[in-house]
Amino acid sequence: MAYFDAASALPLHPVAQQALVAAVADGWADPARPHREGRRARLLLDAARETAAEAVGCRPDELVFTSSGTAALHRGVAGALAGRARAGRHLLVSAVEHSAVLHAAEAHGAAGGTTAEIPVDRLGRVTPGAVAEALGAAPGPTALVCVQSANHEVGTAQPVAEIAAECRAAGVPLLVDAAQSLAWGRVGGDWSLLAASAHKWGGPSGVGLLAVRKGTRFAPVAPVDERESGRVPGFENIPAVVAAAASLRAVRAEAAAEATRLTALVERVRTRVPELVPDVEVVGDPVRRLPHLVTFSCLHVDGEALLHALDRAGFSVSSGSSCTSSTLTPSHVLRAMGVLSEGNVRVSLPPGTAPEEVDRFLDVLPGVVAGVRAQLAAPGAGADPTRPPAEPAAGETSGEGPAGELVIDSLGKRCPIPVIELARAIGRVPVGGTITVLADDVAARLDIPAWCEMRGQEYLGETAREADGGPGGSAYRVRRLA
Amino acid sequence: MAYFDAASALPLHPVAQQALVAAVADGWADPARPHREGRRARLLLDAARETAAEAVGCRPDELVFTSSGTAALHRGVAGALAGRARAGRHLLVSAVEHSAVLHAAEAHGAAGGTTAEIPVDRLGRVTPGAVAEALGAAPGPTALVCVQSANHEVGTAQPVAEIAAECRAAGVPLLVDAAQSLAWGRVGGDWSLLAASAHKWGGPSGVGLLAVRKGTRFAPVAPVDERESGRVPGFENIPAVVAAAASLRAVRAEAAAEATRLTALVERVRTRVPELVPDVEVVGDPVRRLPHLVTFSCLHVDGEALLHALDRAGFSVSSGSSCTSSTLTPSHVLRAMGVLSEGNVRVSLPPGTAPEEVDRFLDVLPGVVAGVRAQLAAPGAGADPTRPPAEPAAGETSGEGPAGELVIDSLGKRCPIPVIELARAIGRVPVGGTITVLADDVAARLDIPAWCEMRGQEYLGETAREADGGPGGSAYRVRRLA
Repeated sequence: MAYFDAASALPLHPVAQQALVAAVADGWADPARPHREGRRARLLLDAARETAAEAVGCRPDELVFTSSGTAALHRGVAGALAGRARAGRHLLVSAVEHSAVLHAAEAHGAAGGTTAEIPVDRLGRVTPGAVAEALGAAPGPTALVCVQSANHEVGTAQPVAEIAAECRAAGVPLLVDAAQSLAWGRVGGDWSLLAASAHKWGGPSGVGLLAVRKGTRFAPVAPVDERESGRVPGFENIPAVVAAAASLRAVRAEAAAEATRLTALVERVRTRVPELVPDVEVVGDPVRRLPHLVTFSCLHVDGEALLHALDRAGFSVSSGSSCTSSTLTPSHVLRAMGVLSEGNVRVSLPPGTAPEEVDRFLDVLPGVVAGVRAQLAAPGAGADPTRPPAEPAAGETSGEGPAGELVIDSLGKRCPIPVIELARAIGRVPVGGTITVLADDVAARLDIPAWCEMRGQEYLGETAREADGGPGGSAYRVRRLA
Repeated sequence: MAYFDAASALPLHPVAQQALVAAVADGWADPARPHREGRRARLLLDAARETAAEAVGCRPDELVFTSSGTAALHRGVAGALAGRARAGRHLLVSAVEHSAVLHAAEAHGAAGGTTAEIPVDRLGRVTPGAVAEALGAAPGPTALVCVQSANHEVGTAQPVAEIAAECRAAGVPLLVDAAQSLAWGRVGGDWSLLAASAHKWGGPSGVGLLAVRKGTRFAPVAPVDERESGRVPGFENIPAVVAAAASLRAVRAEAAAEATRLTALVERVRTRVPELVPDVEVVGDPVRRLPHLVTFSCLHVDGEALLHALDRAGFSVSSGSSCTSSTLTPSHVLRAMGVLSEGNVRVSLPPGTAPEEVDRFLDVLPGVVAGVRAQLAAPGAGADPTRPPAEPAAGETSGEGPAGELVIDSLGKRCPIPVIELARAIGRVPVGGTITVLADDVAARLDIPAWCEMRGQEYLGETAREADGGPGGSAYRVRRLA
């Protein structure tokens, strides 16, 4: 069994476990009470705050503990926006932020504010130039910019220091979501706010960090009370906070060596997977990236089936494919990058992952992908080598369009079927001819252009079928070049 | 050492400790993930929800876990108000609710809503009649009523079932803060929402419960995500939730026997303290009350000094006196009840408290109170038996008022000094004469009338001194009857 979903959550670090048990005995009382039990709890809380602040690189009185990384982001975004409400009501967030930031942005919009997304390139990078451009294009004064230190789905690290400098020059605070990177080191640069989550570094669930640097305008979201400098209401979870701080310090002590080791293992995956598995796109920045995380997408593969097959083979991974999402939409990160979303696999290695586990994954993966492709009778899967790929499969509906082009009706079919039907049919039009795929699965919007790019075909564009009075979905047009 | 502050927080129950350690090993993963670690976490979360729902007396799908009791109240009040926003914008809360409810009410007011407090009697009781009256007196349709099941400071239990019936008849949902009573049993009656906090029953910090019964309109506060039925955002704290549910079940199994035992110990305190200590007022309902909690106030005593003296003697208690509050105002609960706030002590016994500990407290208390009174040279303290109580103490300013009455200038002096100066001076006016105390400590507003009631003197009223163009504070007038 190998757990390769570290970016989602890590088991409790041994140091966290020891600290939790010890602090449960000593830190259960109300730290606001003057009696001995309360004073003991207060000492533990103060010490944990100093340890965490040292790891973050801020003053202890700039740091509060929240109940989760999500709560830290929600409170951080809302508090910074409220503190700057007189300066402006415009919020800028990178297009690849964690959903907690996007949800906070939606709430800001519902309350009358405006939000714009800073686009990323195909590697998922937010450039300082893109930030400057977004600041310049804002409809009014910008109240806050949110950029993560590194992406949770594809591992791309962002140039936070340069982005912070752009924001300082514009007089706009920068909030950094450091959830994925804080275990590996401090976030450099002159940021204003920073949020993180303990269970991402092997601390307990139920602890987030929010740092608000002195001089940053901040108006905490009501209701609050006298706890956590009036920024986070409710009884402090001291045992968990103590365990979080202790494990962050412990993880940091091992971070440099472990980062070197995991970077090499991830590099092995990045190099070998495209060699071992046909039609794979490895996504994310190959150089400026998290040490432990790599993501790739497999053409003509159902992500959910792939996840389950890997689970049966003993590997726990994650996916940004639409079929693995409760909303049946592909990951917004992959969409913003414009990369293939079908058959998506995120491998995130916990500290201590043995090279043999990665090798075993590389041994198992090709057969697993081939098996999933065979189930779908995908082109090149070898499931039915006697069938020429240019022929329509059983049950596949197609026909000639009004201008003589081929039309594939994939309406009602889910990812990756529309792309598979396109791949099967492309050989039936002459080079230079066009093919139209009718599809209402939202993944098609991302995956048909991505397929064209991978296959060297020309993507001509999408026409919404609502405009034709049709039953919905879109018509995607492709010209055969190869 | 005896910890008598159970109403604030309890140490972790052994069952909670075992469950926490076990669930940390099995429940650290993301329950939203389909891999084996995620599925295992999901099973633990579902089982904990069933256990907690059984203890609350609701369906599992009516119950969500929050990060604290405070968070449960904040989310519960805001969600119920938002769900009923079209029906009305008026909120009714009892005057003795936990500060978390009052803070939520303030946030409602800041957002344009109206709030009124339902008054309580001198025992801290909210009567169904008072609720009906408040509903009838509302300036518009009432959106929500909040009444706790039992008070956290004086132990008075509220007639929730009858109040719930009043609310149902009016078509208004009732939110019950069950933080202090859930350990002892289900809250009866047809309430709509219920909130509680795990560390009050020996569960871990970081867990609250919010039950929203089917048919209750509820619009969760944004931002939320897909967690906890879209009502509480952020990664679930499964180990803590499992420990909370397991310990609630364990505590309930012992509740009936332990309630009987602690009720008798509290009765001993209620009876003996006024016999052992002169000038004490025991507050709260003597019959309809929590089993483990008793509160009394000691005339002419500085609450903070009393707390510290008890702490030195090995007893950890709490206080609602102004001098123990960060805001230097007496507890709003004591104010709403109109009882003495100076020298206030809350004794709340943890399960398992030995009778000998209570006896030792009763042995120690008289000397501790006498010592604190002696330090303040309070009347009757015996510190200076040669000094006649009717003479002014050194440094005490007094003089004849314009109408020949005695005026005591206690401006700038903190609780309990203004009351002590009044007590010393009362003998200097003839029976039927009046005495005016100038004071700017807010506790005087509560404690001078309470002193008059205890001493059989007549309280004539208060005049704000701002109206005279003076330096602030109030003039409190008292007529000597005895």
